[in-house]
Amino acid sequence: MSFPGCSSRPRLQGDIFLEQLRTLAEIGLDPRGGRTRLALSGEDKTARDMMVGWMKELDLHVKVDRIGNIFGILSGKNDEKPLTIGSHIDTVISAGPFDGCYGVLSALAVARAFREAELVLPRSLIVAAFTNEEGVRFQPDMMGSLAFAGGISLGEVLAAKDENGVTVEDALKTIGYFGEELPGFFIPSDYLELHVEQGPVLEEEGYDIGVVEGVQGISWWRISIAGVANHAGTTPMTMRRDAGYAAARISVFLREWAKSSGTTLTTVGTLSFEPGAINVIPSTAILTADIRDPDGEKLSDADRSLMAFLGNLARNEEVKISSKHLVRFEPVNFSKDLADSVERSSRRRSLSCRRMVSGAGHDAQMMARICNTGMIFVPSRGGISHSPMEFTEEKQLIQGAEVLLDVAMDRLGVF
Amino acid sequence: MSFPGCSSRPRLQGDIFLEQLRTLAEIGLDPRGGRTRLALSGEDKTARDMMVGWMKELDLHVKVDRIGNIFGILSGKNDEKPLTIGSHIDTVISAGPFDGCYGVLSALAVARAFREAELVLPRSLIVAAFTNEEGVRFQPDMMGSLAFAGGISLGEVLAAKDENGVTVEDALKTIGYFGEELPGFFIPSDYLELHVEQGPVLEEEGYDIGVVEGVQGISWWRISIAGVANHAGTTPMTMRRDAGYAAARISVFLREWAKSSGTTLTTVGTLSFEPGAINVIPSTAILTADIRDPDGEKLSDADRSLMAFLGNLARNEEVKISSKHLVRFEPVNFSKDLADSVERSSRRRSLSCRRMVSGAGHDAQMMARICNTGMIFVPSRGGISHSPMEFTEEKQLIQGAEVLLDVAMDRLGVF
Repeated sequence: MSFPGCSSRPRLQGDIFLEQLRTLAEIGLDPRGGRTRLALSGEDKTARDMMVGWMKELDLHVKVDRIGNIFGILSGKNDEKPLTIGSHIDTVISAGPFDGCYGVLSALAVARAFREAELVLPRSLIVAAFTNEEGVRFQPDMMGSLAFAGGISLGEVLAAKDENGVTVEDALKTIGYFGEELPGFFIPSDYLELHVEQGPVLEEEGYDIGVVEGVQGISWWRISIAGVANHAGTTPMTMRRDAGYAAARISVFLREWAKSSGTTLTTVGTLSFEPGAINVIPSTAILTADIRDPDGEKLSDADRSLMAFLGNLARNEEVKISSKHLVRFEPVNFSKDLADSVERSSRRRSLSCRRMVSGAGHDAQMMARICNTGMIFVPSRGGISHSPMEFTEEKQLIQGAEVLLDVAMDRLGVF
Repeated sequence: MSFPGCSSRPRLQGDIFLEQLRTLAEIGLDPRGGRTRLALSGEDKTARDMMVGWMKELDLHVKVDRIGNIFGILSGKNDEKPLTIGSHIDTVISAGPFDGCYGVLSALAVARAFREAELVLPRSLIVAAFTNEEGVRFQPDMMGSLAFAGGISLGEVLAAKDENGVTVEDALKTIGYFGEELPGFFIPSDYLELHVEQGPVLEEEGYDIGVVEGVQGISWWRISIAGVANHAGTTPMTMRRDAGYAAARISVFLREWAKSSGTTLTTVGTLSFEPGAINVIPSTAILTADIRDPDGEKLSDADRSLMAFLGNLARNEEVKISSKHLVRFEPVNFSKDLADSVERSSRRRSLSCRRMVSGAGHDAQMMARICNTGMIFVPSRGGISHSPMEFTEEKQLIQGAEVLLDVAMDRLGVF
């Protein structure tokens, strides 16, 4: 549709948007200079109340579901298949100002642009703030979007407990966000999420916009190596069964695998030795392997190769190696149409963009179960995330929100 | 000299010797099935009192020095340049029955053999039990022999404190072993020490006796690597500054260095990561390197090569690496004459023997500062040491003590 009556072309109001980002970032400030708003805490309630207030200022119709997801609805002519845009406003401990909040407030800025333009939308636009994306206080993470998309039963989610034994249901009731709606009470046409990259690629390579094509698959392993503790001074090298050396070989193998693959990422983030004495050969080493790839087949290749390597290593080093597959998430593919729309907007605005996959998890990957999904990334300075040091320039924040508005207009057929 | 008057050829009384080993091993029994007699503890006093009693049964003249070393003197015609044989009777936590005790009680068995043979020795024989060889409660280890050999001042040693602030001097006075003599009050002609190998070589290669030619040099390093913590899913492999991977490379380098050297031993016994999360690239890795070689030049080579490797690694991986040289002990060479004497005795008794260096520290290496020194090893099952599982067959224990007696006779000129 075009712009009938007194309506004008929608414009993003960057000043209000940035002011709201700053205001939300003040809630839950902590001594480390970050903000801590664990899901369903008092700080989360304060932030939720503020968000609901801002939705109501725009005359959005606010609905809350049983898992506490908040939806601000800008009704269109047709309320079937609404376009949904959002993210989350809970945080990790001592978070930066943008993660999650940027996605929800930019969605609100899109709604504001439509409202101010006095447009009647052909379909409804829904601004979503999902419950407990971070998963610090309650597990699993991405809880609200997972439950909304039907990936976990409401009963299971509501019964999840924090470390003090408080259930999600109790916490929701305490803060007044145990809503009426059932998760999944509407099915979006498309779900869009704008996010800071949380990685260094866009900054390092000098791009303005990341066109996110999907989320990498993840495979997590815990590997336990049992060797024999012996005296470092009296045990010939040929008689050693050194769990620590075997662990080092695994770390080097994983690095080399990633290097030759080109797309696979491998990380050994934890490693511990026993007994842990300077002059004793380690009898035990326990490490984790984090393996990611956008391609499920390549991820499986990496898993299989690691297992084969462990088998050979155990034989050659005369150690026992056991491995436990902690996590396996398949890669998620986002909508090609949405990615193309993001790229078209970037080009029109003379913003440089590149296709990429998300290395981190997002609500979008859960919503991809039930609708077309797309994500837009803007650069993160130094790739720093989950830290008070998280930083993205205001200009970049606004560029991302403008692309989001363009894509929303494109998907709603508002030209 | 030959056997004048009513004297007979000295013979080792294996039954008494083994019975004393068993009796001493009962003192300080702990719930793990080992014995714990930390230096200058109540358990150590009980063991010392028992040892002094056994010395007096043989009519040895007992002297104690200011650092609590106990000497049982079997006087010869000449009391200059006595032959000294011994070890220690303090233990680590939950020790086996032999370490240290075997050396002292076999020395006592040699004195008994001479006493029973009613020999008048040309020179005195002294049975020595040195204070605090293990270094668990008070540091440094090998304290009594180090002080006796003049390697550390008496004042410094007496002022050393345990973790409760108790000084060595106070502890000596509490158990009644703050003796009259000054450390170094006699200078031995030779110092002999019989010990279980504490390593797997003799057992593995099927030898009865180890002819110890010296003690390896030791170099200990603490290596700290500073990288950058980043998200395992969003940081491309090429942009990582992974302290954990750098640590793995060091471990592999050290193993390969040892393999190509043939004599150098290398061990990474401790390693820790920060922050230590499965999906975070380690920002910090701290590890230790234990490097040993019987040849001081080869040890220095290994040190220099490690430093050069760290420099290259830091550049290639874009991490900062700092290293601290915690310990450097030069190799100790024992007396060739004593080693030859051990070998002659073994051959005479049809015991297989091999030359070797000691990988562990012993009082003998301190005594080597002031006199000819030699050590004799017997096999340790599985090389297990500092554990209730430490084990050597009775037959092997007696074979070692018989060789010790032979060498003592040889050095004293008693044929």
